[in-house]
Amino acid sequence: MDFEFLKPLFNEDAKGKIVLLVMDGLGGLPIVEGGKTELEAANTPNMDALAARSNLGLHHSVPYGVTPGSGQAHLGLFGYDPVKYEIGRGVLSALGVDFDLGPNDLAARGNFCTVDGQGVITDRRAGRIPTEEGARLCELLKANVKLPGVELFLVPEKEYRFVFVIRGEGLSGNVSDTDPQAVGKKAYIAEATAPEAERTAEIIREFVRQGNAILAAEHPANSFVLRGFAEMPKWPRFNDVWGVNALAIAMYPMYRGVSKVVGMTVMPPAASMEEEITMLEQNWDKYDFFFVHIKKTDSYGEDGNFEGKVHIIEEVDQLLPRILALNPDTLIITGDHSTPAKLKSHSWHPVPTLLYAKDCRPDGIASFGERACVAGSLGPRFDATDLMPFALGHAGRLVKYGA
Amino acid sequence: MDFEFLKPLFNEDAKGKIVLLVMDGLGGLPIVEGGKTELEAANTPNMDALAARSNLGLHHSVPYGVTPGSGQAHLGLFGYDPVKYEIGRGVLSALGVDFDLGPNDLAARGNFCTVDGQGVITDRRAGRIPTEEGARLCELLKANVKLPGVELFLVPEKEYRFVFVIRGEGLSGNVSDTDPQAVGKKAYIAEATAPEAERTAEIIREFVRQGNAILAAEHPANSFVLRGFAEMPKWPRFNDVWGVNALAIAMYPMYRGVSKVVGMTVMPPAASMEEEITMLEQNWDKYDFFFVHIKKTDSYGEDGNFEGKVHIIEEVDQLLPRILALNPDTLIITGDHSTPAKLKSHSWHPVPTLLYAKDCRPDGIASFGERACVAGSLGPRFDATDLMPFALGHAGRLVKYGA
Repeated sequence: MDFEFLKPLFNEDAKGKIVLLVMDGLGGLPIVEGGKTELEAANTPNMDALAARSNLGLHHSVPYGVTPGSGQAHLGLFGYDPVKYEIGRGVLSALGVDFDLGPNDLAARGNFCTVDGQGVITDRRAGRIPTEEGARLCELLKANVKLPGVELFLVPEKEYRFVFVIRGEGLSGNVSDTDPQAVGKKAYIAEATAPEAERTAEIIREFVRQGNAILAAEHPANSFVLRGFAEMPKWPRFNDVWGVNALAIAMYPMYRGVSKVVGMTVMPPAASMEEEITMLEQNWDKYDFFFVHIKKTDSYGEDGNFEGKVHIIEEVDQLLPRILALNPDTLIITGDHSTPAKLKSHSWHPVPTLLYAKDCRPDGIASFGERACVAGSLGPRFDATDLMPFALGHAGRLVKYGA
Repeated sequence: MDFEFLKPLFNEDAKGKIVLLVMDGLGGLPIVEGGKTELEAANTPNMDALAARSNLGLHHSVPYGVTPGSGQAHLGLFGYDPVKYEIGRGVLSALGVDFDLGPNDLAARGNFCTVDGQGVITDRRAGRIPTEEGARLCELLKANVKLPGVELFLVPEKEYRFVFVIRGEGLSGNVSDTDPQAVGKKAYIAEATAPEAERTAEIIREFVRQGNAILAAEHPANSFVLRGFAEMPKWPRFNDVWGVNALAIAMYPMYRGVSKVVGMTVMPPAASMEEEITMLEQNWDKYDFFFVHIKKTDSYGEDGNFEGKVHIIEEVDQLLPRILALNPDTLIITGDHSTPAKLKSHSWHPVPTLLYAKDCRPDGIASFGERACVAGSLGPRFDATDLMPFALGHAGRLVKYGA
């Protein structure tokens, strides 16, 4: 979809409201041969009843067979082809720790590591140092490194991981990684990959010099590597692309972050799924597109906890009447990707999707599950980026193309 | 589909005949929850029996979610992506009144309107003047405007609408609209948007000057606006693109017009659906591709007349044996878009499609309806532009690609 194609078709009188309810990692797999997936196993009377009045199908956000990351998969749902719209690793890391990345910021993913006397990396994770140790090292570096003309931020992540951000005028992400991503090698020297990044590369090399001197006496984390230098993307804004006023409701930093990348208004984190729905209710009159994100389906999937994931789906089902009571013109229930408990990880399997609208042509399939969705009219393997035009059309937000 | 790809594959010995039977606005919606669509409700024993020996599916001609106009949707059926192959508004209007638009013609859509003493538009439709009054004003302008070097045609449409055409050497459609499409504004000045259109823009400005002077004493239609200046597109011809000799049989101007745009031979309007089939029979030996257009399904849909639309579908079903008696190698039965009686308008819903061929691999679904088509082997949401290659292949008109 060429974004420009739709713009002349925006219906200026449109009032239709759209809800995109994403259960992270929704798609699943049977644990036993011939068994049910998590979604099929869940007791979901409200979703099943809605399914009978809806269109069903399964989407994928990256080429089928490829497993997407969470940020990428959400871009797909938002209608931005994640193969074309690349978010740099550094930006994803910054979003993941809720860092408020601005237009003058350059971010990278950092790893503390162990090097020998010649600077050769002997442990890429520095023995998986505790998270508190990583935080102490970030503080140590921040207190002692002096970089002229830029502000430095170091945000600890889990264990040996941290986020590196420098803020200043004229910084550029066109700098090569220092992380060789292998043991037995020295860290690479950061080099500009475009002329405008020469000064940035020099700043990073200076940070590496000072930082290594400061960490030399530490053990086991006596060095660090950086990768994925990136600035906040400058993409068309979601509201301009789709002609809506969008609100994002999500508890986890990554999802608020990717919503912010596309320019949505983002709510502060709710304390529970129930509070997320309360936020939806309280803001119903102020916006016309609502992205609501449920995290725990994915978390249980990653943990291999089939029953836990089933239970969360059932809890969401119990919240559904509150959403339906708002009378959305289009309601999409889907996931960003699959996270089958069986695999304990994201997977490439297409993602079950339900699209309800007053004037959809119902498939009449009274069940929301992977195999039910295969028989649905959205098709068994449609592009996630199609969802936004579907939603806009069904919500009466597009006028006729031609006469 | 890249048109050039197929050309080396045309089977020079092919004799296979293809019929594309289009029931305009065929796709529908249930009126009551859980009910049937128009096509599902219709008693169509002949189509159902054929469906069992056919491939079923649903197509869309523009990105799903977007509602196509009739001209655009037919381009899709003819294999021309309507997003890429744009027909200007003026050309569509000229086609709609059966104006025989030639290569030296420039057309625009005109509206009579009411302006105040300062030229500000106070009524964009001039109080919806009667059609006869619009015709009188067209005659008045035609009789009194003098444009050097070009021939002027003004064809009345319904009420305040008319078609503006000038004929002459070197005219260009790269001229901006005079229609501001809002009340409270003056008409815009027509400007060239490309250097080669300077002379054309000056001719149009002259027409506006003289025309406004002539209408100044009229009431309420004392002015007019023009939009969508466009020339007949210069596209690859249907017969060259698909390697066939095509005949179009349609009762309404728009459909004969869009057939003419792609270079088909076009029959004069028939008096009835029965006569359309007679034309098909009488020309069976002279052509190998036949586009047959049924209008009334769409008209009843636009009127919100569910039963009327059902009845027309049943009438077409009764004509089907006459088409089958001709023994077509490929027969496609579909619509150009959906026009659900429930919505009284075109819609974005995909369009039920039946493709019969002697050597198709039958789906074995003995019912032609929207939900039956969801389960069909053409898929629940395929590109309309795929139909022509499907038809050619099934008719034995394509040789093997490669060895």
